[in-house]
Amino acid sequence: MIVVLRLNHRRERDKRVSTHIGLVARAFGADKVVYTGDSDEALIKSLQTVVLGWGGSFAADYEKDYRKVIMDYASKGFKIVHLTMYGLPLEEQATNLRKHKNLLIIVGGEKVPGDVYEAADYNISVTNQPHSEIAALALTLDRVFKGKEFELRFKGAQKVIKPDPKGKSFL
Amino acid sequence: MIVVLRLNHRRERDKRVSTHIGLVARAFGADKVVYTGDSDEALIKSLQTVVLGWGGSFAADYEKDYRKVIMDYASKGFKIVHLTMYGLPLEEQATNLRKHKNLLIIVGGEKVPGDVYEAADYNISVTNQPHSEIAALALTLDRVFKGKEFELRFKGAQKVIKPDPKGKSFL
Repeated sequence: MIVVLRLNHRRERDKRVSTHIGLVARAFGADKVVYTGDSDEALIKSLQTVVLGWGGSFAADYEKDYRKVIMDYASKGFKIVHLTMYGLPLEEQATNLRKHKNLLIIVGGEKVPGDVYEAADYNISVTNQPHSEIAALALTLDRVFKGKEFELRFKGAQKVIKPDPKGKSFL
Repeated sequence: MIVVLRLNHRRERDKRVSTHIGLVARAFGADKVVYTGDSDEALIKSLQTVVLGWGGSFAADYEKDYRKVIMDYASKGFKIVHLTMYGLPLEEQATNLRKHKNLLIIVGGEKVPGDVYEAADYNISVTNQPHSEIAALALTLDRVFKGKEFELRFKGAQKVIKPDPKGKSFL
């Protein structure tokens, strides 16, 4: 099971980035996203609407205290993975990540508190360059699933795309 | 050479997503990003500031007319790649993309005009699920470069991170 924890969501400023985080988590095979920071019902609902239309059983949730989320999952045996540009390279650590059945993958907001670095079993960098927590999450899930996320089928979908070389088609 | 074309940037609404697009383009080995839509000097400057600090020769530019950008690059022999959830699977098309020396990779804004699908040599989907143009761009560059983007070194960098298992370190 893979759960994504998005830290420090800010309702206005992070609206779209946090949505992208949730959508990437779902599309690339995670089971759940948990947001901390501002409580934001519209964000949770928009993700639930995607699940209704596009299928699968992805869950989206809000928790007030990120420390509690980390401690809860750690106590259930989840390994804690924190994505940060300062961490150890994904390409070197991917084999280690794949050893674990359950991962809590943390993606930061603007300022990540020091205790997250401490709590993490793995601080992982997806390149050591500034870019995007959305891209970092996508690449991490890609390496954990070894590209198998492209074969995912989402049960109960109302909308299923038929790949098309020139336009938009649905099955 | 790889150029990323970001369509229909909207100054307020897309501020952060468009910034992430530019940063991902740079970090994952593209040479340049071109924005159409709203002209946005602050966006261009913020990317140039990243290049100054973190090195390399990545360029960021604005053009008013996306059709002109596509036609200009096509006339120089660039293959046009449009990332869309409706296209053909990246995993099947990556080998084809790697055959070409020069690519213009188009990432959409909200509503992509039909002529972009027509102008594209390749309409490529990174999963057929709704997620994020930022993630789609990152995965596409990863497949084009076959993971070699993780070995990139950026010349003239003032800031170089030293990967750290628990905190933040610079060389």
